[in-house]
Amino acid sequence: MQTLQEKASEWSGVSTNDAFAIDETNLYEKLGLQTFINLSTNFYNRVYDDEEEWFRSIFANSKKEDAIQNQYEFFTQRMGGPPLFSQRRGHPALIARHRPFPVTHQAAERWLHHMQQALDTTKDIDSDSKTKMMNFFRHTAFFLVAGDELKNPKQGIPCKHAAGKSAAA
Amino acid sequence: MQTLQEKASEWSGVSTNDAFAIDETNLYEKLGLQTFINLSTNFYNRVYDDEEEWFRSIFANSKKEDAIQNQYEFFTQRMGGPPLFSQRRGHPALIARHRPFPVTHQAAERWLHHMQQALDTTKDIDSDSKTKMMNFFRHTAFFLVAGDELKNPKQGIPCKHAAGKSAAA
Repeated sequence: MQTLQEKASEWSGVSTNDAFAIDETNLYEKLGLQTFINLSTNFYNRVYDDEEEWFRSIFANSKKEDAIQNQYEFFTQRMGGPPLFSQRRGHPALIARHRPFPVTHQAAERWLHHMQQALDTTKDIDSDSKTKMMNFFRHTAFFLVAGDELKNPKQGIPCKHAAGKSAAA
Repeated sequence: MQTLQEKASEWSGVSTNDAFAIDETNLYEKLGLQTFINLSTNFYNRVYDDEEEWFRSIFANSKKEDAIQNQYEFFTQRMGGPPLFSQRRGHPALIARHRPFPVTHQAAERWLHHMQQALDTTKDIDSDSKTKMMNFFRHTAFFLVAGDELKNPKQGIPCKHAAGKSAAA
């Protein structure tokens, strides 16, 4: 059986080495907190205004300002800055925290579309940082798609409360 | 509803600040990779020899050497060293990776019992590092207990394949 990591690489087309090249540079020190805040604000402005209702609706139960803060605190922590996310909310637990949402291949591509636009229109992000971040995001998005499939007893670890049920929802 | 972080603090008795005090010092630089390897080896020797069969059996499907490597690579990455775990296996995704196991309050306490013994009998771990690590481990163990309850539709986010079922297993 393929691991989460192998699925993420295959589906994203991004190798593990390229995905984790974000660890070669301290992007937090290079870009600064304000740039992360600007990027996440730019990103979620696009998401909450998405003309695609199916995608916009995934975020309907979250406040935009909370989504922005969760994201830039995670980016800060993951890319070399202080552990703002964990201090406020605990371990990232990326797959578990995405559990309520339908993280499909299509949703991953739509997320990445908005992030690419946000990266391209946020000032002070140089092209090397942009490439590193986009590779990380692309690999991570498909890692979460792989994680989402764990919810499906046909493909992943069975949901114990579904024992005895044969049809997948 | 309590967040994962709030449950972790309440059940562990460790505040978020104390749990994430591991980020105040670079424990990887202070202790070195070999100490993490020694600690994880010491820990899993105890776990795989546990006289409590119910606990030992949780690990029965994993090879001891794999368990050791997964653990010291995660510790290295989380405590200031190179991202060995992610480069090999992707995001820690702590809750999702513990999903196959029954992470109960009792299992958390047993895990912590062995880890306390391992910390006390691994050389070159000073008492400040030991305190910081034990607080982090205790908080994290109960964070995972809280995460485990997400599998239970009565207390967490419903498992979508259990829709329409009323009884919890």
